[in-house]
This record gives sequence, structure tokens and C-alpha cells, in this order.
Amino acid sequence: MPELRKDPIVERWVVVNIEKPFSPKDFNLTPFTWKGESNCPFCYGNEHLTPPEIEAISEIQRAPNTSGWKVRVVPNKFPALRIEGNLDKQAFGIYDMSNGIGAHEVIIDSPHHFKDIPQLTDVEIEYILRMYRNRSLDLRRDRRFKYLLIFKNVGFDAGASLEHGHSQLIALPMVPKNVKEELKGAKQYYEFHDRCVFCDMIEYEQENGHERIIAQNNSFVSFCPLSSRFSFEVWIVPKQHQIDFAEIDDNSLKDLAKILKETLTRLKNVLGEHPYNYIIHTSPVNIDSHFSYHWHIEIMPKLTRVAGFEWGSGFYIVFTPPEIAAKYLKEINI
Amino acid sequence: MPELRKDPIVERWVVVNIEKPFSPKDFNLTPFTWKGESNCPFCYGNEHLTPPEIEAISEIQRAPNTSGWKVRVVPNKFPALRIEGNLDKQAFGIYDMSNGIGAHEVIIDSPHHFKDIPQLTDVEIEYILRMYRNRSLDLRRDRRFKYLLIFKNVGFDAGASLEHGHSQLIALPMVPKNVKEELKGAKQYYEFHDRCVFCDMIEYEQENGHERIIAQNNSFVSFCPLSSRFSFEVWIVPKQHQIDFAEIDDNSLKDLAKILKETLTRLKNVLGEHPYNYIIHTSPVNIDSHFSYHWHIEIMPKLTRVAGFEWGSGFYIVFTPPEIAAKYLKEINI
Repeated sequence: MPELRKDPIVERWVVVNIEKPFSPKDFNLTPFTWKGESNCPFCYGNEHLTPPEIEAISEIQRAPNTSGWKVRVVPNKFPALRIEGNLDKQAFGIYDMSNGIGAHEVIIDSPHHFKDIPQLTDVEIEYILRMYRNRSLDLRRDRRFKYLLIFKNVGFDAGASLEHGHSQLIALPMVPKNVKEELKGAKQYYEFHDRCVFCDMIEYEQENGHERIIAQNNSFVSFCPLSSRFSFEVWIVPKQHQIDFAEIDDNSLKDLAKILKETLTRLKNVLGEHPYNYIIHTSPVNIDSHFSYHWHIEIMPKLTRVAGFEWGSGFYIVFTPPEIAAKYLKEINI
Repeated sequence: MPELRKDPIVERWVVVNIEKPFSPKDFNLTPFTWKGESNCPFCYGNEHLTPPEIEAISEIQRAPNTSGWKVRVVPNKFPALRIEGNLDKQAFGIYDMSNGIGAHEVIIDSPHHFKDIPQLTDVEIEYILRMYRNRSLDLRRDRRFKYLLIFKNVGFDAGASLEHGHSQLIALPMVPKNVKEELKGAKQYYEFHDRCVFCDMIEYEQENGHERIIAQNNSFVSFCPLSSRFSFEVWIVPKQHQIDFAEIDDNSLKDLAKILKETLTRLKNVLGEHPYNYIIHTSPVNIDSHFSYHWHIEIMPKLTRVAGFEWGSGFYIVFTPPEIAAKYLKEINI
């Protein structure tokens, strides 16, 4: 019989296939075929194909919008939201409306067209994470923004429209639904137990045979949560309670680069090239603080399709139980 | 500038692309290629390939598990949940767990391998809807079940694994997250306004130029909600306040068959063959009643991919505003 598990933060149940767990090959993934376009706007020499850069990290002296950068940030050419104008929220019949004020930036992870995180060096990954922090600190100075969402889509089926590795930052003028739910769940747990639910999740994993833990270092632990929504889902959580990703110090940034690389390399070696998203879950900005929240990264491989059952219920079916996924991920050579 | 719209039921914002609305061809959909397997377990003559049938509708005398049926219901061969055993809910560390008690039935819509709803007759569709009602009424007699989710996946990208038209019913031992949210939102709206939010949505559309209304008859209205999550999303809502789908009477069942066929035919004629899901949103069973809820059907074409932004925020980007989608759907010949 399958097992139902409930997420301790939000009221989400998952159906875990513990009877006939899927092995990585059972997902029948079609491997990526790289196109390698010559006109890639994210490659060296094509800087003129993007809107003018917002910020870049470079080890050499360079003029903006020329090559030589390590990480480069540009406005999204097709932004979901626009930065110009005054925020205008209003009622519209029984609906609430707002104009589409926000920011939509693209962080070009590296100049290498064919390299995803596993192929980059620790220092190159550190640059990306440093840029996430820079942009988060810069954009929160705009008081219109209440949430800064940083995420990465890799592969067509995970929603990437360009194959050259990139991340995105969307600044929103309101705290989004999914974040509100997590904040509320974490707060309720904290008020009841006087403990952080994320700290408890880590402690639970550490004290229960490390069965679902993939990797850890001084600052972070990487594990497959017991109530994962997706097969081979992995969370990277700071060991110390920390509310806001942008508070991360330089040492922890190095540790994060290392564990992110190790985790994504293990996933790649177990699953082969596969579509995935990762999302930095962090607390809002320019509103009351949320002490009970604990930022973290959720990595979500896209191995199956979301269908009517998931859309209708919010339940998810997990084909490889997290214990078994963790075993594959720990045992693989990297 | 894009427009942000908030759903009046749950706290979901959507980004509506009102500047450069996508036309149907902008989605670049790859048309279905029908395989037409000779060993389809849902075709006449292959009844032995499914588990023994639970119920069938037939116009002729027939023995169970033989051909001649119009709609046939069988247990899912690979059920997400199992019907045998006692429900066992318990704590597990900081988590809640349950064994996977439930039911997972497949409703084979018709004997025609190559016909989806638009190609079926009104009477054939009425049989399907009647079977939804039958199964819902039967399964609620099992007091372990708290929610009966009826849905349909069409096309690979919408999660269908078999191409022969079929629907599914999953009986759950708890009220799922998404349903709880809708119930809560509808209740809060009702308590504040002393009106049903779904009734208000219909009235709003009727009183505002019918801009987003696609079709209506005595019992139902079919429209593109102002705060749609997906491009070309359509809801079919009973005009009279009704909590529970299974309360539908025979006359309304006929009206529902007609409007469902018309709506899906309009979608097919505008978008071509496309992957989609529809889900019957209804109130739970075997718990306190929810007077403020109003059952309805949500049709969700899958024209784009859900990526990091949607997963991280719960925001959705709508490429064709519902006003414009409705215009296409109203104007197309059927």
C-alpha cells in the first residue's frame, strides 16, 4: 500500500510509492540535445543582443556590455513585470487589481554556453551566488518591492527558453501566495512549539540515521525531505537559523557553492541530464520581519508531468521515495 | 505594462499580458499524433485487459466485462491509493502520516478510441456525466473517504498515459489542500458579504457586457474568469447555487453535457488538438457541509510550461488575457 505523508509547513499531502519505487531509468527521460546557437545573447561577444547590463562580476578591468565578465545581469528582454511607473493597486468589481510593477532580471551564470552548475568551478558558482545576494540587497532598496524571487530553470521541460545557463530574479510588489503559506505554516509551528520547523526538520534527519541526507558541510545540509513533492527533490538548508538569504556571509557563500555543486552533480550523475528548477525560498522585504522563517533552496527535478490529480488536489505522487532517492544520490560516484 | 489580477477566492495573483496578447498560433503547439494501439485496454473486445469492471452504462443487455457498453468504470491498474484495509493515520516524528487508503477508478468515456468529448454525441457525454454522479454517490457511502476528485487528462503534456478518452476518480481519506483553500476563501467571502463568491463572479460577468462569457443555457454559464491562471482557461458554473456536483438533476445533466461539448469544441476549433485537463471542483463528503461553496468545472488547456516563477510564487503568467481568449472562443465556427 502507498504511504501518505504530510508536509509539516504547509498543508500538503504526498502519495509516496513505497511498493515499487521507480529507479532513475524508470522515468524514461529523453536526454537534452544541445543546440548551441551561434547567436546566443548570453555568450561572449554578443553582449549587444541583451538590454544594457545592470551589474557584472569580473576578474579583469572591462567596459560594461563587453566580454570578460564572469557573471552578468541584464533586464529580461521579455519581462513579466516592469520597473517604470508608480504602483497602482485598486478594486475592480469583486476583484483586486494592480498594474504590473516589478523587476525581472536575468543572471547569466557564466560565459560558458555548455556548462551547467556541475561543470563550473567552486569559484564560478560562488560568483553566481554572490550576484544573487548583490541583486537582492540592491532591489530591496526599492520600497515598492515586497518579495525578491530568485530561481533557475534548466531544460525545456522545466521552462527554460534559452539553453545557456542562467538564473532569474523577479521582484514582486506583493508577497506571493506560496510564500505567504510557508510563512504562515512556519509561524504557526513556531508559536506552538517555540521551535523553527526547518531547524526541526534538519535535526530530525540528523538524529534518524542520516537516511535522507545527501551531503553536509559547516554551514549547510542537503537532504531529500520526508514529504518531498517530487521524486529526487532535494533541499539545501542553512544549519544555523537564518531568515533571509541575503544575510549570508562570505564564508557560508563558499560553503553554499560547494554543496550546491555537489548536490547538482550527484543528481546529474544519477539521473543523467534532466530538466529541473531550483528556487531560493526566503523571507519578504519591506514588510514586518518573520523570525520563524528559515531560508533554503529547493531543487525540483522534473521527471514526471503534473496532471489533473495534482492540479485538483494539491496532492503529489512521488514515484521514488526520498529515502531511496537519497541512497542513489549518496552512493553515486562524483 | 502587464496587469496583475487577484483571484477573489484564493490569494492568487496572475500576471496578465495585456500588451502583446498571444494568439492561438503563438503557442506553437505540436499537434497530437494518434498511435491507435491495437491492444488498447479501453477498446471493445479488450475488456479482459482491465481489472474487472465496477459499473457500466449500456443500452443493451450485456454481461459484465464484455463489449456493448457506452461508459465503463474499472479500478485503475496502477492505483495511486488502495481501497483495502483500515485507515491508519499517525504521527511520525514531526510529520503526519497515513497509509494509502483511497480509491482510484478509471471512467472509460466511450468505446471510441479516437473520439474526445467534441466528437461524442450529447447523449454519449450525458452518460459520462451520469457515471461521474453515480460513482460519486456510491463512493461517499464509504465513510473513510472525505473527498471525491473527478478529473480528465487529455494528451501527453497534460499527463494522460493512454490516448483512448477516459476520466478518473480518486477518493481521498482527507480533504486536500487546494480544496481546503477554496472552501476557506469561499467561506470568508460569504461571511463578509453574505453572498457566494461564485454567484458573484457569474453576476459580474453577466452585468459587464458578457465580455468573457462563451456560452450559456438554462442551467450553466461557461466563461473565461477574469483572474484565469492559464491562457484559454474556461470555467463552467451552475447558475443556481449548488454545493455538491452529485446533487445535479437529470435536466441539468443534459444541459451540462451540451455546454461541456460546446465549450470543448470551441477550444478545439480555436487551438487545434491540444493537451488539457478538466477538474470537477466540488465540496467534500462525510464532514461538515459547506454552504458557501459552489461546485463548478475548471478546464485548463496546457499551452505553456510551468517553471520556477510559478513554482516559487504561486503567480501565473497568462499570455492571452481572458477577454481576448473569450473573443476567439465566441467567434469561432462550431
